[in-house]
Amino acid sequence: MIDGHGDDIYQYEGIRMNFSSNIYAHADLSELEEHLCRHMHAIRSYPEPSPRSLEKMIAHEYGIDADEVLVTSGATDAIYLIAQAFRDRKTYHVYHPTFSEYEEACRLFGYEEHPDGALCWLCNPNNPTGRVVTEDSVIEASRYHEFLVVDQSYEDYTLCRLPQPADMLCPGNIIQIHSMTKQYAVPGLRLGYITAQASIIRFLRQQQRPWAVNVLAIEAGKWLVGNRKSLIPDLRSYMDETQRLRAQLNAIDGMKAFPTQTNFFLCTLESATAAQLKEYLARQHGILIRDASNFRGLTPHHFRIATQSPEENDALVVAIQQFLDRR
Amino acid sequence: MIDGHGDDIYQYEGIRMNFSSNIYAHADLSELEEHLCRHMHAIRSYPEPSPRSLEKMIAHEYGIDADEVLVTSGATDAIYLIAQAFRDRKTYHVYHPTFSEYEEACRLFGYEEHPDGALCWLCNPNNPTGRVVTEDSVIEASRYHEFLVVDQSYEDYTLCRLPQPADMLCPGNIIQIHSMTKQYAVPGLRLGYITAQASIIRFLRQQQRPWAVNVLAIEAGKWLVGNRKSLIPDLRSYMDETQRLRAQLNAIDGMKAFPTQTNFFLCTLESATAAQLKEYLARQHGILIRDASNFRGLTPHHFRIATQSPEENDALVVAIQQFLDRR
Repeated sequence: MIDGHGDDIYQYEGIRMNFSSNIYAHADLSELEEHLCRHMHAIRSYPEPSPRSLEKMIAHEYGIDADEVLVTSGATDAIYLIAQAFRDRKTYHVYHPTFSEYEEACRLFGYEEHPDGALCWLCNPNNPTGRVVTEDSVIEASRYHEFLVVDQSYEDYTLCRLPQPADMLCPGNIIQIHSMTKQYAVPGLRLGYITAQASIIRFLRQQQRPWAVNVLAIEAGKWLVGNRKSLIPDLRSYMDETQRLRAQLNAIDGMKAFPTQTNFFLCTLESATAAQLKEYLARQHGILIRDASNFRGLTPHHFRIATQSPEENDALVVAIQQFLDRR
Repeated sequence: MIDGHGDDIYQYEGIRMNFSSNIYAHADLSELEEHLCRHMHAIRSYPEPSPRSLEKMIAHEYGIDADEVLVTSGATDAIYLIAQAFRDRKTYHVYHPTFSEYEEACRLFGYEEHPDGALCWLCNPNNPTGRVVTEDSVIEASRYHEFLVVDQSYEDYTLCRLPQPADMLCPGNIIQIHSMTKQYAVPGLRLGYITAQASIIRFLRQQQRPWAVNVLAIEAGKWLVGNRKSLIPDLRSYMDETQRLRAQLNAIDGMKAFPTQTNFFLCTLESATAAQLKEYLARQHGILIRDASNFRGLTPHHFRIATQSPEENDALVVAIQQFLDRR
């Protein structure tokens, strides 16, 4: 694995505002937490080797078959499993900048980058740019590769219509990754799933280790799907707040906040590096941002912001202005 | 992954006594469960990409360096990680009967079985036989293979002295697997670790996906190691009870309970298959045993028992006697 991911909150003392992970930090998780405490005795037994009960529930939600769903220990586990399973294909393609783990997982299993790579990875909405690709473009891209992996980890953080699992089964070579970690703002639990044609899911399941998913993560997944929990009560106002924050940041001299179709976006500062700004915000304001300079294709000046509450967003704007005034 | 592991309790209704997993089912986990409930908010943040804080604590307990420890999502995750990492070695060796996942993980990554295999797997104490190999024999075995993987998942369930991590670093090619799942009877959490020379740990870490371990599992691990929790209050009397149970089972006509140096052991019934007995015990008595017929080298008549409380053990003996009387 590589160093330098977002949400490195464990490295800092006294962080009060976390803009660094692309996750909505104000989800009301109290009911879920109570549910897990009531089911804590589950840690005394093995989980299902493969969490079929949760897979059935997810399939039912999407109107697809349970054999078209594979639950994993988070979206990252799904990425590594797919790279492992198709390693005899040997070539991959990825559009930069994007989440670094596609390339990292392929490198680990001996792939080489090639524009016509057998395995093509697409993050939609894309991390870190926040851009969304339409269903037509996804189908179009699937024609040029043996397999197209579409990571929809951020699918619940956009007003754009995204390709639905039932509609993506037909070309036969599209593999969708979904993140319950992100869908429900529970990154500590490690829970995600893959949807694809049954033959692909069967192949991936053969390659998966048993008991891959923690029993509390499975229990949480069943409760969240069963109760049809919605993480963000009002997505439209959250997206509006994202645009308000972007406008405020763009009003700062020498700063640019790039367009987005989701709740996170890239920024650059002309006069300082992202690392300098990050260190200042963390130490002086208890604010954590994502230094995005290690995304291939970006520069030492790029950082990423995920929209939080209006008060926190205002505090971020003030803190960045103070950073610039001190220099 | 293959089907047919132990502790398939989720497949049955009304199981009251579980002899099927090799885990002591009467551990007092109430303090741990309370601790996890108090720290349930941890699910809102990503875990450490690599749980270094827990690795430091484990290393301290053993008197080794933190760079000689790698925490994994259970011992099975460790097995698959090792098989993945050394897949270019192409040959393995394993002594049957033993835990099937060594072979399964090697098969998955394209290895072939060979008596001089580069990667040799040893389960100590061995599942399902309960036999222990001495330190001298481990060192001896390490001379014949490039790497010797010693799975000590059941190390806390025996009075025999087992090879200690600090003593196993020196040959340089021994990789020990440890299971906190089994050490503390929390199989639902998925928590284990590898100890080996720093160069091996460094190599394995490069091959590990980030955020492999659930944040609650890490939290549990820190609490268990920090409080030096001992799972089995009186190991000697538990081992004595194991021998008492074996003697009772051996007194049944047509039944054999094999010798063991741990809390579980193999049995055979002359007149019925393990599958028949298992079905009867589960449906009629709410008792779960492990059909061991799918261990390579064993027969349809083999099953495995893990010692439970004296009352439960007596109930098992009575139930098996009833099964035979009905036939």
